[in-house]
Amino acid sequence: MYIIGIDIGGMSVKGGIVDENGVIICKSSVPTAQGDNPAAEIIADTAKLIDRLLFEGNLRLSDVEGIGLGIPGTIDSKRGIITYSNNIKMINIPIVAELKKYFGSTPISIGNDANAAALGEVRFGSAKGNSNIVFITLGTGVGTGIIIEGKLLEGAASAGAEGGHIVICMDGADCSCGRRGCFEAYASATALMKQTKAAIEKNPDSLLAKIAAEDGKVCGRTAFIAAKKGDKTGAEVVEKYIRYVGEGIVNLANIFRPEVVLIGGGISNEGDALILPLQKFTDESCFGIKNGNPRVLVKKASLTNDAGILGAASLALG
Amino acid sequence: MYIIGIDIGGMSVKGGIVDENGVIICKSSVPTAQGDNPAAEIIADTAKLIDRLLFEGNLRLSDVEGIGLGIPGTIDSKRGIITYSNNIKMINIPIVAELKKYFGSTPISIGNDANAAALGEVRFGSAKGNSNIVFITLGTGVGTGIIIEGKLLEGAASAGAEGGHIVICMDGADCSCGRRGCFEAYASATALMKQTKAAIEKNPDSLLAKIAAEDGKVCGRTAFIAAKKGDKTGAEVVEKYIRYVGEGIVNLANIFRPEVVLIGGGISNEGDALILPLQKFTDESCFGIKNGNPRVLVKKASLTNDAGILGAASLALG
Repeated sequence: MYIIGIDIGGMSVKGGIVDENGVIICKSSVPTAQGDNPAAEIIADTAKLIDRLLFEGNLRLSDVEGIGLGIPGTIDSKRGIITYSNNIKMINIPIVAELKKYFGSTPISIGNDANAAALGEVRFGSAKGNSNIVFITLGTGVGTGIIIEGKLLEGAASAGAEGGHIVICMDGADCSCGRRGCFEAYASATALMKQTKAAIEKNPDSLLAKIAAEDGKVCGRTAFIAAKKGDKTGAEVVEKYIRYVGEGIVNLANIFRPEVVLIGGGISNEGDALILPLQKFTDESCFGIKNGNPRVLVKKASLTNDAGILGAASLALG
Repeated sequence: MYIIGIDIGGMSVKGGIVDENGVIICKSSVPTAQGDNPAAEIIADTAKLIDRLLFEGNLRLSDVEGIGLGIPGTIDSKRGIITYSNNIKMINIPIVAELKKYFGSTPISIGNDANAAALGEVRFGSAKGNSNIVFITLGTGVGTGIIIEGKLLEGAASAGAEGGHIVICMDGADCSCGRRGCFEAYASATALMKQTKAAIEKNPDSLLAKIAAEDGKVCGRTAFIAAKKGDKTGAEVVEKYIRYVGEGIVNLANIFRPEVVLIGGGISNEGDALILPLQKFTDESCFGIKNGNPRVLVKKASLTNDAGILGAASLALG
């Protein structure tokens, strides 16, 4: 059995043909069109990409059980419409109907990319065999994908599962959504970089400051590197950041009581330095753990580079 | 068709026989046993209460399709066990198995009382016809019941849906759960009373202070009464309190994007003085409303006095 997974991102559209075990038999990509009419261009480019994948995989369209597309933004999966995507500049685009013009005979599914990634982890990754998970990506923003009894939580018009936009510090840091104090405004890689820069300004003589100066920039890794080298300023930044992430995790764990919270996105590459203290915080803070409520495991997501393709393919698996 | 709904509370066990339209054909109650072995006493009292209801309703057990029990605390609905209930002092009590000894031939369902109330509102109350709702009770604590595609969200071992225990003010007010800054610590009636008392201390000459002195106490209504009479201090307390409730509503709305958020519990009796500003705040703050995401309605729950019985009965309706 073969499925095609397409991961539409701000920089590139990636695609792959995937078998039922999550093995990618071929993959390819095109840069995301940035012209005046990105919707039409991206749809045409995606169609060409699918043709190319079929050619390279030596398959016909009839060999493919379905096509899944993971897309950033608010994606109305039931109606097959991109409601709003800031990253790829699309509003109210009936992408499934458009792609049906090319691949009418094949089922086409779309979904939010974080939701797709959550499904991918349950099908092929760290959460294989779990049916209740919360997946949190710590990247440019904070995305969440939530699976309950094996099904994606989407909410009305698929506008739910915006777990990055729960306020954890009322009247706190500005968030891109217009509110103040959102989880995303504290726990994204962007936020960590701001926190790191602020600590460098306050502690210009720290090893953290030296590392940043040597690298010529601050990134999501800078504070973790300094902390590992024994720098107090770096360790403080990391400790505070982990606390922010932890508060968001426990909020979501108290609501969903999933079996597993999976951490993905760039920051998850810190591995145990991130995951172990988050597990400790979750064990200490989750509601009613001392009174018999089940523990919530915190794990690193495992589908790294191909998470987008495998997640999108999982959408087609339903 | 008849069902029996039993609402086990800290003060009394209430029961009623309910028909398929939510009409209570008879009801009764007993005080909640407070002795050394409350579990055994409460179970025996509940059995007697059910017998009495059948007698008063002139029905046989075989006329009843099911018995539902709404219980405060962590209730493992699948296994039929009260995992932990602080209010009625029960830990790990297999209440369904115990009641089966009396009513073995009849299906018996249990659930958390806030979850039951949410189901009741969907079956018989303000959310009739809706399939995605978040129900928030503003009482001694803050309880939440969440329904997704017509089904209760319960989480592993039914320990989820603890929406009162999401931190909205990190490092803020102490919460009974051990964390600091939970929604419950700001939005419960208990929290409102604390906020009112603090405002009175700061403004001893306010009308708010006078009203409290005349009543001899502060309750959840005090600040609302003062605000309605034009008192600035009372209005400030109400405004801030509504902001806290609003932040929690929008957090849950961004996660679930329900059709409706229902407000119940003692404070909901304030009606439009509470609901209208909450609707305004939700409209202004929900994620992506300006970009086509659907609006989330805020409504008052409608099953007031009999909410417990009708909710418990709804558990038996599945």
